[in-house]
Amino acid sequence: MARGVRIALDAMGGDFGPAITIAGAARALERRPDCEFLLFGDEALLQKELAAFPELAKRSQVRHAAVSIRMDEKPSVALRQGRRVSSMWMAIEAVKKGEADAAVSAGNTGALMAMAKICLHTIPGIERPALAALWPTLRGQSIVLDLGASVGADAKHLVDLAIMGSAMARIILHVECPTVGLLNVGTEEIKGVEEVKEASKLLREAQLPNLDYQGFVEGDGIGKGVVDVVVTEGFAGNIALKTAEGTATQVKTLLRDAMNRSLLTKLGALLARSAFEEMRVKLDTRNVNGGVFLGLNGVVIKSHGGMDAKGFARAVEIGYEMVREELLAKIRHTASVAHEQDAAAATASAIAARPQE
Amino acid sequence: MARGVRIALDAMGGDFGPAITIAGAARALERRPDCEFLLFGDEALLQKELAAFPELAKRSQVRHAAVSIRMDEKPSVALRQGRRVSSMWMAIEAVKKGEADAAVSAGNTGALMAMAKICLHTIPGIERPALAALWPTLRGQSIVLDLGASVGADAKHLVDLAIMGSAMARIILHVECPTVGLLNVGTEEIKGVEEVKEASKLLREAQLPNLDYQGFVEGDGIGKGVVDVVVTEGFAGNIALKTAEGTATQVKTLLRDAMNRSLLTKLGALLARSAFEEMRVKLDTRNVNGGVFLGLNGVVIKSHGGMDAKGFARAVEIGYEMVREELLAKIRHTASVAHEQDAAAATASAIAARPQE
Repeated sequence: MARGVRIALDAMGGDFGPAITIAGAARALERRPDCEFLLFGDEALLQKELAAFPELAKRSQVRHAAVSIRMDEKPSVALRQGRRVSSMWMAIEAVKKGEADAAVSAGNTGALMAMAKICLHTIPGIERPALAALWPTLRGQSIVLDLGASVGADAKHLVDLAIMGSAMARIILHVECPTVGLLNVGTEEIKGVEEVKEASKLLREAQLPNLDYQGFVEGDGIGKGVVDVVVTEGFAGNIALKTAEGTATQVKTLLRDAMNRSLLTKLGALLARSAFEEMRVKLDTRNVNGGVFLGLNGVVIKSHGGMDAKGFARAVEIGYEMVREELLAKIRHTASVAHEQDAAAATASAIAARPQE
Repeated sequence: MARGVRIALDAMGGDFGPAITIAGAARALERRPDCEFLLFGDEALLQKELAAFPELAKRSQVRHAAVSIRMDEKPSVALRQGRRVSSMWMAIEAVKKGEADAAVSAGNTGALMAMAKICLHTIPGIERPALAALWPTLRGQSIVLDLGASVGADAKHLVDLAIMGSAMARIILHVECPTVGLLNVGTEEIKGVEEVKEASKLLREAQLPNLDYQGFVEGDGIGKGVVDVVVTEGFAGNIALKTAEGTATQVKTLLRDAMNRSLLTKLGALLARSAFEEMRVKLDTRNVNGGVFLGLNGVVIKSHGGMDAKGFARAVEIGYEMVREELLAKIRHTASVAHEQDAAAATASAIAARPQE
């Protein structure tokens, strides 16, 4: 049997800290019994929570961390105060040291990104990391990135996002050659910002392995699930994600209010409750919890800060899958093909530019 | 009584042409009986459609246009083939000549934008026009701009968008001093792209009349209706709009499918049909149809190309309201205050920069 997957948990992260992270880890362990955990945080607190989960306690080591990063701390302050001594940093560092295979945190996104970048560095050839997440669609799920790990992107970064997102899609969506689209303001080749048009050209020409580039996708194409991987720059990606969340909440609120309007509508809602339950499950954000930081020399997963144990467990499982299915090897392989092409193109143009003899 | 409002219609625009635009104009006239129409398009076709609407025929003049711009035509080609001779151009030109107060088209957005800009030019001090639209929220409606009239924006353009959007909000939302937010990836002042942060500083300092600047808004704040006017650069704005449309469709599709799953759920849906009807009305995009091109020396309204007569009538009415409530005067007034401040600041810094004697 293969070696277990070792997860380093920032057990203090999130809106609820160990009460949720420990219960979430226990839940993930039920589904992935070959998980082992390194739990970073206030030792006394963690031991107290662990007492309720003897199975988890058997598969865990607790490592004391003196500092917990606040959810609203600025990344620069978090780094100054939390480097080496915070549960967040120590969980990431465990990945760097090879003591763990993946780090999972429900803490402050900006701080997690900053620490992960400083501690793990980016994969050779990838300049900037990205944050990717699952997006429920009418066809199932898609992966959307970057969701705000960085803002602004040149064409090269957009190509890197396509490479990283498709590696993640192979693991999560179980397709060997995921379809990839670039988010744009129109599907015609003439529209959009220069970087996006240039990235489209690069992706078409590169014919990268394990990546089926399909062209531009508009905002309404994400929810339709027209491609497996939607690539965009982090500012627009973050706004798209939050706008979609806001719209889903808005429609659900409208529906709930309308259903509570009269006795008759309430009765109707009662009879149709299996339908509402089905919708609730399909729109349950806990099922898609777990953003993946891509492009680093290590697997780092971000859980939503407000998640319950079920949601946090899903983030742990996403970390597990990324390790088991070798996310980093998949990214490195496709990235190396892209870079060989770049190098070949550079050599060719250098030769072409040589003065004729 | 005040003079009627004269609307120039590109009667050939949209997916259905005169069949919808003429019926829509007739419907708008019922609600706004002081409208007059200049109808541009294929004269024979228009006369045929008009025959069914004698009231509209009395209040209309038909002007023959030899060319209709295709919905998928590139703006550059549309301009080359349609300048002076297309129904779209002629409708806009009627505004320029003072023969009409507003132009309304359901045609190709890019072509309409290009023609409007070339024909009408921007208001002094406004460098680039914008496209703004109503967005249904949990509190009612908000205005979001720019939705893709241009991509990319410096801080000055974002301030112009705030000025133009709040002028439109005063008319549509009937508030004297609309609240304004800048769309960003976080609500903290440290986040986001430089242009957005700089625009935030400018808006805080300027204290412009009829504009209550509230700071940053995240994507999920749009649907909550946290501000009357949401300002963003056109790429992100277009993606936010289409992503929201896609998500609303997605949730509605899930709901419909779930409700059709069994006899019991179908019965529930039947009993609760007033609730579904209420939702349908609240989410009916026809009620918010009519994008407003802002920043031009004239009122130009863009109807969604796929709208029916009811939706097109709403776009005509938005044009009507913009004229009646003097959109252009409102924009010019706030813009002139902003420019006086700019000039004063420039003078002050020139004085400060003078060598001391």
